[in-house]
Amino acid sequence: MPQNAEPLENLIDQFSRFPGVGRKGATRMAYEVMGMSNEQAMELAKAIEAAKTRLHRCRLCQDYTSGEVCPICASPKRDRSIICVVEAPQDIKAIERTHEYKGLYHVLHGLISPMDGIGADQLCVKELLARLDDQVKEVIMATSPTVEGEATAMYLAKLIKPLGIKTTRLAYGLPVGSSLEYADETTLYRAMEGRGEL
Amino acid sequence: MPQNAEPLENLIDQFSRFPGVGRKGATRMAYEVMGMSNEQAMELAKAIEAAKTRLHRCRLCQDYTSGEVCPICASPKRDRSIICVVEAPQDIKAIERTHEYKGLYHVLHGLISPMDGIGADQLCVKELLARLDDQVKEVIMATSPTVEGEATAMYLAKLIKPLGIKTTRLAYGLPVGSSLEYADETTLYRAMEGRGEL
Repeated sequence: MPQNAEPLENLIDQFSRFPGVGRKGATRMAYEVMGMSNEQAMELAKAIEAAKTRLHRCRLCQDYTSGEVCPICASPKRDRSIICVVEAPQDIKAIERTHEYKGLYHVLHGLISPMDGIGADQLCVKELLARLDDQVKEVIMATSPTVEGEATAMYLAKLIKPLGIKTTRLAYGLPVGSSLEYADETTLYRAMEGRGEL
Repeated sequence: MPQNAEPLENLIDQFSRFPGVGRKGATRMAYEVMGMSNEQAMELAKAIEAAKTRLHRCRLCQDYTSGEVCPICASPKRDRSIICVVEAPQDIKAIERTHEYKGLYHVLHGLISPMDGIGADQLCVKELLARLDDQVKEVIMATSPTVEGEATAMYLAKLIKPLGIKTTRLAYGLPVGSSLEYADETTLYRAMEGRGEL
């Protein structure tokens, strides 16, 4: 994108690159920056630079970290026999908030999507396969329940199962707190199919 | 706000300062920055710095500009007998989009709000009064139709009317394209009150 010569217009252009931020939202943000103290604005600019220069991918799980290996991969408390495969680093945060999972993670940094021209070679699949030593007993596919998430889970399962490692998928069903009335047919069908004994 | 030592958390903190951006939105934006090329991220950081360092307030209307006087105040094509008073610079953009108004503007950079401890002395009122020479025949109060917008318009009208300058207010009424059914009572009452002959 060519830089806009007008500083305010350029800033609006930059903010409107963010997904979910429209032209109006970007304009509001730009004016918000103008209303900040110089110190606050410089802190924001520095935070962007620092995040990009000080963080890189963990050698093992590919999550962002400032060390060579991320805190989860480095922790002696985590169960090294399970790897949970996710699309993006923010998915790790979501799973960690449940305080249930004690295994390791692996970030693919995307999903297979032929429509967008994204194949397995553009994802961190090689790095995942390299981690599958004798210690690993299970790989959980925790990609989203979308077409791309399914396709990626299937693809990886086909690669991993032959290695004699258990390959599992997150359960489908009704979201907790939701109303049956508003559930779509596919979800309801999957919830029925995956029903458990009481 | 103390800087967060963790670059990613710090960036999320910075983005969540924006109004209308929650923790989730800020997290998405931070990860979006991480997904950008280094070049793109540095462009964003530089755009923030450039907007803050290269722009300042127009000596006359107080809108942001890179010159001493903004393009509207400097234009010989604008009608110097009318000044339209707005709360914020983005309001100028909104009015300019109508392509109807040919006069000048004045930005207050806020509204009188006793609840938030904002009095007239914190707004650019002095700068407005200083502009009211013999050339000025009308001042349009284009503050929002909110309690604060009304109070500010009233306050300014009391100061400006004694100078023998016509003081007007934007019309109240039904928004174009809206349905009468969904109009609130106050708007409908004002629309009735301000009815015009056909």
